Amino acid sequence: MTRLFRKHYHPAGTAPGTLRELTLEQAALITPASFLLASREAGRWGVVRDVSALDVPAVESADQLHWLHVQGMPTAEELERLGDRLGLHPLVQEDVLNGGQRPKVERFGDTLVVMLGVPFEDAERSLHLYQLTLFMAGHYVVSFMPDGPDPFAEVRCRLKERGGKALGEPDDLLYGLLDAAVDHAFPVLDQVGERIEAAEFDILDHPDSQTLERLHGLKRELILLRRHLWPTREVINQLLRDHNDLFTPDTRVWMRDVYDHTVQIMDLVESYRDMTASLLDIYLSSMSHRLNASMRTLTIIATIFMPLTFIAGVYGMNFSHPHSPFAMPELHWYWGYPLVWGVMVLIALGMIAMFRRMKWF
Amino acid sequence: MTRLFRKHYHPAGTAPGTLRELTLEQAALITPASFLLASREAGRWGVVRDVSALDVPAVESADQLHWLHVQGMPTAEELERLGDRLGLHPLVQEDVLNGGQRPKVERFGDTLVVMLGVPFEDAERSLHLYQLTLFMAGHYVVSFMPDGPDPFAEVRCRLKERGGKALGEPDDLLYGLLDAAVDHAFPVLDQVGERIEAAEFDILDHPDSQTLERLHGLKRELILLRRHLWPTREVINQLLRDHNDLFTPDTRVWMRDVYDHTVQIMDLVESYRDMTASLLDIYLSSMSHRLNASMRTLTIIATIFMPLTFIAGVYGMNFSHPHSPFAMPELHWYWGYPLVWGVMVLIALGMIAMFRRMKWF
Amino acid sequence: MTRLFRKHYHPAGTAPGTLRELTLEQAALITPASFLLASREAGRWGVVRDVSALDVPAVESADQLHWLHVQGMPTAEELERLGDRLGLHPLVQEDVLNGGQRPKVERFGDTLVVMLGVPFEDAERSLHLYQLTLFMAGHYVVSFMPDGPDPFAEVRCRLKERGGKALGEPDDLLYGLLDAAVDHAFPVLDQVGERIEAAEFDILDHPDSQTLERLHGLKRELILLRRHLWPTREVINQLLRDHNDLFTPDTRVWMRDVYDHTVQIMDLVESYRDMTASLLDIYLSSMSHRLNASMRTLTIIATIFMPLTFIAGVYGMNFSHPHSPFAMPELHWYWGYPLVWGVMVLIALGMIAMFRRMKWF
Amino acid sequence: MTRLFRKHYHPAGTAPGTLRELTLEQAALITPASFLLASREAGRWGVVRDVSALDVPAVESADQLHWLHVQGMPTAEELERLGDRLGLHPLVQEDVLNGGQRPKVERFGDTLVVMLGVPFEDAERSLHLYQLTLFMAGHYVVSFMPDGPDPFAEVRCRLKERGGKALGEPDDLLYGLLDAAVDHAFPVLDQVGERIEAAEFDILDHPDSQTLERLHGLKRELILLRRHLWPTREVINQLLRDHNDLFTPDTRVWMRDVYDHTVQIMDLVESYRDMTASLLDIYLSSMSHRLNASMRTLTIIATIFMPLTFIAGVYGMNFSHPHSPFAMPELHWYWGYPLVWGVMVLIALGMIAMFRRMKWF
Amino acid sequence: MTRLFRKHYHPAGTAPGTLRELTLEQAALITPASFLLASREAGRWGVVRDVSALDVPAVESADQLHWLHVQGMPTAEELERLGDRLGLHPLVQEDVLNGGQRPKVERFGDTLVVMLGVPFEDAERSLHLYQLTLFMAGHYVVSFMPDGPDPFAEVRCRLKERGGKALGEPDDLLYGLLDAAVDHAFPVLDQVGERIEAAEFDILDHPDSQTLERLHGLKRELILLRRHLWPTREVINQLLRDHNDLFTPDTRVWMRDVYDHTVQIMDLVESYRDMTASLLDIYLSSMSHRLNASMRTLTIIATIFMPLTFIAGVYGMNFSHPHSPFAMPELHWYWGYPLVWGVMVLIALGMIAMFRRMKWF
Repeated sequence: MTRLFRKHYHPAGTAPGTLRELTLEQAALITPASFLLASREAGRWGVVRDVSALDVPAVESADQLHWLHVQGMPTAEELERLGDRLGLHPLVQEDVLNGGQRPKVERFGDTLVVMLGVPFEDAERSLHLYQLTLFMAGHYVVSFMPDGPDPFAEVRCRLKERGGKALGEPDDLLYGLLDAAVDHAFPVLDQVGERIEAAEFDILDHPDSQTLERLHGLKRELILLRRHLWPTREVINQLLRDHNDLFTPDTRVWMRDVYDHTVQIMDLVESYRDMTASLLDIYLSSMSHRLNASMRTLTIIATIFMPLTFIAGVYGMNFSHPHSPFAMPELHWYWGYPLVWGVMVLIALGMIAMFRRMKWF
Repeated sequence: MTRLFRKHYHPAGTAPGTLRELTLEQAALITPASFLLASREAGRWGVVRDVSALDVPAVESADQLHWLHVQGMPTAEELERLGDRLGLHPLVQEDVLNGGQRPKVERFGDTLVVMLGVPFEDAERSLHLYQLTLFMAGHYVVSFMPDGPDPFAEVRCRLKERGGKALGEPDDLLYGLLDAAVDHAFPVLDQVGERIEAAEFDILDHPDSQTLERLHGLKRELILLRRHLWPTREVINQLLRDHNDLFTPDTRVWMRDVYDHTVQIMDLVESYRDMTASLLDIYLSSMSHRLNASMRTLTIIATIFMPLTFIAGVYGMNFSHPHSPFAMPELHWYWGYPLVWGVMVLIALGMIAMFRRMKWF
Repeated sequence: MTRLFRKHYHPAGTAPGTLRELTLEQAALITPASFLLASREAGRWGVVRDVSALDVPAVESADQLHWLHVQGMPTAEELERLGDRLGLHPLVQEDVLNGGQRPKVERFGDTLVVMLGVPFEDAERSLHLYQLTLFMAGHYVVSFMPDGPDPFAEVRCRLKERGGKALGEPDDLLYGLLDAAVDHAFPVLDQVGERIEAAEFDILDHPDSQTLERLHGLKRELILLRRHLWPTREVINQLLRDHNDLFTPDTRVWMRDVYDHTVQIMDLVESYRDMTASLLDIYLSSMSHRLNASMRTLTIIATIFMPLTFIAGVYGMNFSHPHSPFAMPELHWYWGYPLVWGVMVLIALGMIAMFRRMKWF
Repeated sequence: MTRLFRKHYHPAGTAPGTLRELTLEQAALITPASFLLASREAGRWGVVRDVSALDVPAVESADQLHWLHVQGMPTAEELERLGDRLGLHPLVQEDVLNGGQRPKVERFGDTLVVMLGVPFEDAERSLHLYQLTLFMAGHYVVSFMPDGPDPFAEVRCRLKERGGKALGEPDDLLYGLLDAAVDHAFPVLDQVGERIEAAEFDILDHPDSQTLERLHGLKRELILLRRHLWPTREVINQLLRDHNDLFTPDTRVWMRDVYDHTVQIMDLVESYRDMTASLLDIYLSSMSHRLNASMRTLTIIATIFMPLTFIAGVYGMNFSHPHSPFAMPELHWYWGYPLVWGVMVLIALGMIAMFRRMKWF
Repeated sequence: MTRLFRKHYHPAGTAPGTLRELTLEQAALITPASFLLASREAGRWGVVRDVSALDVPAVESADQLHWLHVQGMPTAEELERLGDRLGLHPLVQEDVLNGGQRPKVERFGDTLVVMLGVPFEDAERSLHLYQLTLFMAGHYVVSFMPDGPDPFAEVRCRLKERGGKALGEPDDLLYGLLDAAVDHAFPVLDQVGERIEAAEFDILDHPDSQTLERLHGLKRELILLRRHLWPTREVINQLLRDHNDLFTPDTRVWMRDVYDHTVQIMDLVESYRDMTASLLDIYLSSMSHRLNASMRTLTIIATIFMPLTFIAGVYGMNFSHPHSPFAMPELHWYWGYPLVWGVMVLIALGMIAMFRRMKWF
C-alpha cells in the first residue's frame, strides 16, 4: 500500500549535517550506488561509462561537460569524497542520504541544488515517490537517485542518438533532466485516471464495499501526490524567478514549458480529487436510495400481510362454549369463510391503494 | 461521456519539441486540415479562400492583413512549413499538434501565441473542450483548430457583411477571435443551467436514482469547465496586463469586455457548483426524510399488530386436559371471545395513543 | 422562484457593441422608459420633471447639476440619441440594454460608469436583482434602471425637502445614489434572516420535507446574493482606490461608509450561509436520530414478540398420535398452559433486561 | 437565544448621518446614558465623577487628561452637544446611536475613532455583542457603551489604586481600554470551551437529540464571534500599521500584545469550529453505527424466527380428509412432533452459523 | 485527553505585565525551576552546572558565551531578578509565567525573544504542547521551559562530546536550540501516523464504535498541532526575513533547513487531516453499505415468509358449518394439503426470482 510517511528523521537533538548510520535492516533494502558518467567533448556526447566515486574526472576545458548519474545509495564515504570534489554542502549530502525531503531548490553561490520526487507505480500499482537530487556546479551536473528505478534511461538513449546538438550546455542538460523527471507523473496520473473511471463505472452500476476500498486507495495516492506536487511547482517557479541568471533566454523558454507541465499535473490532481469526492457522494446517495427502496418494499409487505395474518390468527383461536352466543359465532356462519376472505382482500386492496396514493410504487 | 483527461503526452524522456508520430488508430479519428485565408486589402476584407499550407502568401504592404484559419489537424510537415514561414516556435508547433494544453499566452519578441479551449456540446450533450491556438505576428493572424467544429463561421460572415470597417487591425482581429471563442461558453452554460433546473425539479418532486447519475454528470462537466476556465481568465488578464503594448487603447477597452465575460462565466460555473452541491444535500436529506417516514409506518404497523397476533396465537394453542382447571379455561368462558377482542382493541388504541403523544403521525 | 441565470447574451460571433433586437416575447415584458430629470440651479434642486430622451437639456453653467433617471427600458434609438448627447461608450449602451452584467466600474477619461445590481423581493418573496447603471460625466449624472421598481423614490423626496444643501455636487449625488442602491440589500437580508430563523424553529421542533424545500430556496437566494455582492464590494473599493480624484475628501469619507455597508452585508450573507449549512446538518442529524429511535422501537417489539408468537404457534400445531408419547404431550400436562405462559413471560423479561443493559431505553 | 442579526438600519434612501428617531418599543429597552468622567491632573488620576453631557469640561493644560465613559444610550441631543464640543463626525454619531456596526477604525485628522464589539454572556448563557466606540482627540478619550454591562469597571479601580503611574498618556489610556475590551472575549471563550467539552462527553457517552440542539447553539455563537473577531483583528492591525504616529514606541509594544491576543482568540474560535464540526461528524457516525447495530439485531431475530413461525403455522393447519394419504400425514407420525422440533432447531442453528460466518456477532 | 484550551488568562481589566499570583491548586502542579548554565570559554564548552537565579554570572569577554536553561517554573521573584540582570521586557516575563502563548518572535533592540510550543506525548499518548521561550541578548542565550520534560538533554550531550567546534556563536546556539525544539514534532507525528494506519486497518476490516472515538481523538490532536504549527512556521520565517542581521550567512543556511522542517511538518499534519477526513467518510460509507446489506436480508426474508405464514394461518382457521359448501372446503379436498404446499413453494420461488432480477443477491 502507498505509504504517506516514512520515518526518515534524526532523533531530535542530533547535530544537523551528520550523515546517518544505517541500521542493518535498512542496509538490506538498499541498492549500492553505481556511478554513470556521460561526458561531452568537442560538441559530442561520448559513451556512458561506469566510474568509481573515488576518482571522478574533473572538467578540463570550457567546452567539456560532465553528467554524473548516481543510481542507488552511495555510502557515506563515497558521498563525502564526491562532496569534497564537487563542493556539495554537508546539508545537501545529509538530505541525499536521508531522503524524505520536500522538493526544494537551494543555491550556494554558483552551485544549484534541486530536489524533487519522482513518482513511480510498482507492480502492485502502489505509488511511490523516490527522491531525485540534481546538482549543477560549473560544467558538472550530478544527479542522485538513491532509491527506485532509473528515471533517465531514455535521456541517455537520446544523448547517444542525437549526438552533437542536444543538451549541450549545463543549464540545458539540467532542463532536460527536470523535464524527464516531471513527465514521469503523466503515466502515473493516467493510471489513476483509469482507476477513477473504473470506480465510477462500478459505483453507478453495482456498488460494493470493495469499491469503497479502492476509492480510499485513490484518495491516499492523490493526497500523497498533492503533497508532493505543490512544492514541485514552486521549485520550478523559483528556478524561473530567482535563478534566472543561470539559464540562457532560450533555456528559459523551455523551462516555462516544464512549469506549464507541473501546473497541468496539479490541475489534473485537483480535478481527480474533486472526482473522487463526487464519487463518494454519489456512492452515499445511491446507498441511501437503495436503502429507501428496500425499506419501502419491506414496509409495503409488512403493512399488507400483518393485518391479514392477524385476522387469520383470530379465526384460528379455539374459543368455544356450548351455550354462549359470543363464542366465535362467525366460525359457524354459512357465509363466514368467504366473508373473511372478502374482508382480507379489501384490506389488502385498501393498503395498496394507500401506497399508490403516496406514490410509493 | 465527458472525459476529464486525454492521454496526450510524450513518454517521459522524449526530446521536447519533437512532433509526435500518430498511431494508426489516432490517425483515423483526425480530420485533415483545410487552410482558409481571409485577406484585407485597401481597407476591405476580400473573399475567404482555400489555400495550400505549402505556399501561404506573404504580407506585402503595411495595410494588408492576413487571417489564416487552419481547421482540422495539419500534418507535421505542413506545420513545419508554416512554422518556417511565419516563425512559429517549435514548442508551439508541438502544442498545436499534441493538444490537451492548459490555456496560456506566450510571447516571443513581437509574436504572440494564445491557447484556449473552446467548449462545445455534442449531439448527446457531452461537453468537449477543443484546443484553439491563436498566433499573431505582424500583420498575420493564424488560428489553429485541430479538432471539433469551426468556431469562427459567424465571424467570417460578419467580415463579409460589414466590409471595410470591422476588425481592420491585427490586434482588433485577435480581439474578435478571442471574443467569439470565449462566448462559445455561454450556450454551453445555458444548457448546464437548464439541466440543473430540471434536476432540481426532479429532486424536489420525485427523486430517483437516475437523478443521481445526472447530477454526477453535471458535476463532471463543471469540474472540467472550471479546470479550463480559471486559466482562461488568467490568459485574458495577462494579455491586458503584460502585453498591453500590442493593443491600441481602443482595443484594450474591448478586451476588458472579454475579460468581464470570462469573469461572468467563472461566476456562473461557481454558482452552478454551489447549486449542484446544494441539490445533492437536498437529495440526501429528502432520502433521509422518506426513510424516516417508511420506518415509522413500519414501526407503527408492527407495534400494533405483533402483540395482537401474539394474543390470537395464544388462543389458538391446543392445551387441553380433562381435569386441569388451568388448561386454557379462558377458551370456555361465556364472555371469553368478546373479552379477547376487547383486550386487543384496547392494546391497539393504547399503541395509537402512544404514537400520537410521540407526534409520530 | 429566484432564477440564478438569465439568458442575456449574444450568439457567439455577433459583433460586440451591437444593440440587441428584442424578440416579441421579450418586448411584451418590458416597461417603456420614462425620463425623470432633476436639476439643480442656483444652489437649489428644482422640481423633478418628465423629459423626452430626444431633447435632454445641456448643462449651461458650472453651478448647474442635472440628474437624469431613466426608469424602464429605453429603445435602442433613445439610447443612441442619449449616448451621442452625453458621450456614452457603445459597450456601455449595450450593457444597459442587455442587462445581466456583473457589477463593474469603468472609466473613459472623465466619465465614470458604475454598474450594480439592486436586490428586491417580489410579492411571492422571490429575490430579483435588477441592474442599475450610474453614469457621471461633468455635471451630468444619469441613472438607468431598465427593469424592476424605482430605487430612488426616497432620494427624490429628500432632494425636494432638503432643498439647497443636500447632494449639491456630482460626486456627492453619485455617492447618494450608490448609498441608496446598496442599502436596498438590508430589508432583503432582513427577510432572509427571518426566514432562516423560522426554518431553524421548524427544524428543531417538527422537521418535515417542506422545511427542506424552504432551506433550499434560501440557499439559492444566498448563492445569488453572494455572486452579486462580492463584485459590488470590489466596485466600491475600486471607486475609493482608483478613482479617488473624482471625489472630494469629504465625499470620500461618506463613500467609505458605503464600503463599510457592503462589507457588513457580505458578512451577513456569509453568516447566513454558515447558518443554512448548519441547519442542514442539524436536519440530517435529527433525521438520523429519529430513525434510530424508530428502529429501536421496532427492534424491541420484534425481538420480544417474535419468539413469543413462535411458541404460541408451536402449541397451535395439531400433532396427534393415539399411542406416541411424543405427540405434543405438553398440551395434555396438568400445568401445561400456565407453564407456557411462565416461559413466555420469562423470555419477555429477559429481552427487556437485555435491552436495559444495552441502554436502549 | 443568541441573535445573529439585529435590525439596525435606515430605510434605504434616508439621508446618511441623520440620527435615528427611536420607536417607543425600542426606547423602552434603552438605559439612559450616564457620563463618568475620570480626570488626570498633575500626574494623578482624580476621583471618577458623574457629569452632565451638557457641560463636559475642556482640557485646560497639556498635562491634563480626560476620560469620559458614556454608559447607556445618550439621547440624540446629548450626542450632538458632545459632538460639537469634542469634534465627533456626524457619521460617527450616527454609528454610536444605531449600533450593529462592523468593527472599524477611522481617522479624521488627529482624532481617532475605534469601534469594537465586546462579547458578554447573559444569565441564560446567550452570547451578546455590545458595541463599544472609543474616541481619542488630543487629551480627551471618550468611550461609548450604549448597551450592555460596563466593561471598564476594573480599569477604573486600577486607575484609583495605581494612582500616578498607570495609563498616563492618551495613547496609553486608549491601549488600556482596548486591552480590557478585547480580553472580555476570554471568559466567553472559556464558557464555550467548557460547553464543547460537555457536548463531547455527551456525544461519546449517550447522544440524544438535545445534544444536537446544544451543538447548534454553539455553532451559532461561533459564527457570531467569528464574524465579529476577524474585523477586530484587522482593526488592531490597522492601528499598528496605519496610525503608528499616534502611539509612542513603548505603547506600540503593548499594542502588539493586544494584537497577539486577538490572534490567539481567533485561533481558538477556529479550533472550536473545527471541534464542533468534528463532533457533528462523530454524532452522525455513531448514530449510523447504532442504527446498524439495531438493524442487525432485528435482522437476526427475524431471520431466525420467521421460518420457525412459518413451520409452526403449517402444522397448525386443519387439513383433513378421511381417505387421502396427503392430508397432513406428518401430524400423525409417531415421531412427527420431535422431528419438527429437530428441523426447527437445525434451521435456527444454520442461521446462527451463517451470521457467525458473516461476522455479524 | 489532549486539552485544546487552557485557562491561562488574566481577568479582563488586569494591568498587563503584572506577574500572576498562582492559586494553591496551580502551585501544586508546578515543578520549581532549576537553572542549568553551560558556558563556553576559550573556544570550548565547559561543564554544565546548576546555578542560582540570584547570581547568574555576567559575560566578561567577547569570546565567552553563556547558555542558561531554566527548566521548571521560576518564581515571580526569580524571574524579576533575571529580567533585571539580562534585560527581559516585563511583557516577556509575564508570557513566560502565564504560558499558553501563541508562537511569536519579538525584538527589542538587539535582544531577540522567540516563543514556541514543544509537542510531547505523555505515557497515555495524549499530546501536550509545552511553551519554550528562547531569549538571546549579546553573548547570553536563555531558554525557559516552565512545564514538561527537558527538550535539550541531547543538545547538552552533544556540546560535551563535540567540545570546541559546535554551536560556538550565539546565533549558532539559538539555531541549535530551535532545531532541537522543532524536531520534537517528528516522533509525535510518527505516533499519529501509526495510529492513523491502525485506524485505517480497523475501519476497512471491522469498524466499531471505538474506532470512532479513536478517530475523534486523532482529529483533536491534529487540530491542536495545526493551531500551533502555522504560527511556528511563521516565526521561523520571520527570523529569516526580518531579523536577518542577527545571523551570519552560514547560520542562515542552517536556519533555512529548520524552516524546511517546519514546512514538512505542516505538510504532514495537513495530509493527516485529509486522511482522517477520508477515513471518516469511508467509515460512514461502509456503515451505510452494511445497513443496506442487513436491510436487504431482512426484506428478502420478510417478503418470502410473510405471505407463506399468512397462508398457513388461513388454513389454521376453524370455520366449520355442517351444511355450508363455503366453510373452508379446501381443508377437505383430497389433494388440499399438497396443493397448499405447491402454492407456497411457487410464491417463494417467485419472490426469489424477483429479487434475482432486481440483482439483490
